Amino acid sequence: MATTRAQFEEVFTNVIVPDLIAEIKKTEISENAIQWLERNFLHNTLGGKYNRGMTVPDTYRLLAGKETLSLAEYKLSAILGWCTELLQAMFLVADDIMDSSKTRRGSPCWYLMEGVGTIAINDSFLLESAIYVLLKKYFKGTDYYIDLVELFHDVTWKTELGQLVDLLTSPENSIDLNRFNYDKYYFIVRYKTAFYSFYLPVALAMHQAGIATPDNLTRARDVLVPLGEYFQVQDDYLDCYGNPDYIGKIGTDIMDNKCGWLVNKALEIVTPEQRKLLEDNYGQKNAAAEKRVKDLYLELKLEDHYRRYEAESIAMVKGLIDGVDESQGLKRSVLEGFLNKIAGRDK
Amino acid sequence: MATTRAQFEEVFTNVIVPDLIAEIKKTEISENAIQWLERNFLHNTLGGKYNRGMTVPDTYRLLAGKETLSLAEYKLSAILGWCTELLQAMFLVADDIMDSSKTRRGSPCWYLMEGVGTIAINDSFLLESAIYVLLKKYFKGTDYYIDLVELFHDVTWKTELGQLVDLLTSPENSIDLNRFNYDKYYFIVRYKTAFYSFYLPVALAMHQAGIATPDNLTRARDVLVPLGEYFQVQDDYLDCYGNPDYIGKIGTDIMDNKCGWLVNKALEIVTPEQRKLLEDNYGQKNAAAEKRVKDLYLELKLEDHYRRYEAESIAMVKGLIDGVDESQGLKRSVLEGFLNKIAGRDK
Repeated sequence: MATTRAQFEEVFTNVIVPDLIAEIKKTEISENAIQWLERNFLHNTLGGKYNRGMTVPDTYRLLAGKETLSLAEYKLSAILGWCTELLQAMFLVADDIMDSSKTRRGSPCWYLMEGVGTIAINDSFLLESAIYVLLKKYFKGTDYYIDLVELFHDVTWKTELGQLVDLLTSPENSIDLNRFNYDKYYFIVRYKTAFYSFYLPVALAMHQAGIATPDNLTRARDVLVPLGEYFQVQDDYLDCYGNPDYIGKIGTDIMDNKCGWLVNKALEIVTPEQRKLLEDNYGQKNAAAEKRVKDLYLELKLEDHYRRYEAESIAMVKGLIDGVDESQGLKRSVLEGFLNKIAGRDK
Repeated sequence: MATTRAQFEEVFTNVIVPDLIAEIKKTEISENAIQWLERNFLHNTLGGKYNRGMTVPDTYRLLAGKETLSLAEYKLSAILGWCTELLQAMFLVADDIMDSSKTRRGSPCWYLMEGVGTIAINDSFLLESAIYVLLKKYFKGTDYYIDLVELFHDVTWKTELGQLVDLLTSPENSIDLNRFNYDKYYFIVRYKTAFYSFYLPVALAMHQAGIATPDNLTRARDVLVPLGEYFQVQDDYLDCYGNPDYIGKIGTDIMDNKCGWLVNKALEIVTPEQRKLLEDNYGQKNAAAEKRVKDLYLELKLEDHYRRYEAESIAMVKGLIDGVDESQGLKRSVLEGFLNKIAGRDK
C-alpha cells in the first residue's frame, strides 16, 4: 500500500525531531535556542503536500517488489523522504526572503513571523545541516552512504544554480522581456525544480533498493527531468488558466514578472505591436495591466498552444519510458506511475 | 618555509576558480550567470587575512616534518585551506545581512553592492556548495574523503548553532542585559568561532598527514577550542582597548549590544547602581552613552581583570599543550606555534 500522510508525518514527529533535538542537546546549548530550533524544524518542514518526501517510500516499495514494507525498511525510506522535505524547507525559507513572498502554506512566511526576520537565513542553513546529521546517523553503516551524501550535494548545487538564473532573469524591480527566452526558461525549470523534485526522491529510493547503478541513475534522470519540465509547464499554465478553487491559490505570475512558459510562448509568436503591449503591461502590479496581458494570451490562443505542447510532452515521456532498459532492476512501472499522476492534472 | 599569501592566492585564482567555472559550464548555464558566479567567488573569498586557510598547509608541513612541500602536496593542502575560506565566506556573506553590517574588508558588504541585495543569500549557499565540489574532485580517491566531508558538515552545523545563540542573545532592536551570561558567551565563542577558525584547519591538515586518529582529533580539539576562546576574549578586549591604527577598525561592540567578554565581566562585578547605568547605556547608538559605558569599565578596572584572565589562559593552554600525547603523531610544536602567535598580540 502507498504511504499515507499520517504514517509519514509520524516518522517526522516521533523519530526525526527527537533525533535532531538529542543531537543538539549534546552541545549544552541554551533552552531558548532548543525551542527555537524545534519550532524552525516543525514550522518549516510540516504542512506541505509531501509529494517529494512520500515518493521515496512509495518508489522503494515498488522497486523492492513488496506489497508492504517492514517497519525498519519503511523508517529508513521515510527518513530519506524527510531529507528531501528538509532540503525543500531550506530552499523555501530562503526563496521566500529573496522573492519578498508574503505567505506560505496559509501562514506568513517564516521570515515575516514575529521575532524571526533575517534569523531565517541561519534557520535555512540549519534545515540543510539537519539532512547530514540524519544521513550520518542512519546510513553511515551502509555501502551507499557516500552516494547519498554526494547526491544531496549535487542536487543542492544544481538547485542553487537554477535559483540564481531565476533571480537574474526576473529581478523584482526591473522588467525587461529581452532577458526571457526558452533556454533560460528550461534551465530554470530543470535546475531549480526538476532535479530536486523528481530525480532526487527516486534516486534515493534506488540507492536504498540497491539498484542505483550509474546506468540506472542516468535512465531515471533522463525520464524524470523531462517529466519535471512538463510538470512545471503545467504549473505555469494552471497559474493563469487553472481554477483557483482547485489549485488553491490565485495565480500571480504575470504581475510577478515571472519567466514562465506562457510569456515565452507569447514572445515567440507576437507581432511587434503585440510585443509592445506585453512590454508595457507584463510585470506591472495592477489588475488592469494583468487583464491586458491575459486578453493578449486569449488572442494568441495560448491555450491551444499549451494543449499541443501537453500532448507532445506526454507522448515524448511515454516514448522515453518505453525505451527504459529494466535489465539492471529499474522498473518502468515506477516511471509510468509518475506520468499517470501528472498527465492531465487540473490542480 | 611557511606559505605566503601570494603562493596561497595563486592556488585560488589558477586552480579553484577555473575548476568551479568548468564544473558550472557543464550545465550550459547562461553567460551572465557564469560571470555572476565568478564575481561571487572572487569578491567574497579573496581579500581577508587567510589565517584559517594558510593554517592548513603550514600545519601539514609541520606534521609531515618537511622543510618544503612538493607541489602536489602543497596544492592539496592549499585546496583544503581554501575550503575553510569558502566556509568563512559563506558565513560572512550571510552574517552581514543578519547583522545589518555596512562594510567588509574595506568594501560595502556583498548584499549592499549594486544589483545584489537578497541574491546574496543564494550566493552564500553557492559558496558552501563549492566546498563539496572541490572535495569530491580532489579527495574522492583518498581513504579520508568521507572524513573531510563529515568534518565540514559537523563544523558547519556547530557554527550555525553558535550563530543562532548569538542572534537570540543580542537581537538588533531589543536590549536586555538579562539575556547575557558567561554560559551563553562561551557557547557563542566556541561554536560560532573556535571550531571553524581553530579546530577545522588543523583537523584538515591532520587528515592529509594521515594522523587523524579519533584520539588525536580529540587532543587537538581540547587545546584548540580553549585557545580559540582566549583569542576571542582578546578580540573583545581589543575592540574596546586596542589601538584603532593597529587593529584596523574602530570598535563598535558597546553600541552594537554585543554579548562580549567585557560586558559579561562587568555584569559579574557591578553594584546595583552601576548595573542601572549599564542597562541605560549599553547598546545605545550614541557616543555619549558609549562613553559612559567606557568610563564605567575604567572604574571597574576591567583592564586588570582582562590581564589576569589572559595570564591564566596562557598558563592553562600551555598546560594543556604540555599534556598532549605525541605517540600517535600529533606534535606539540604545532599547537605551541598557535599559542605563540596569539599570546600578547595587540592587533
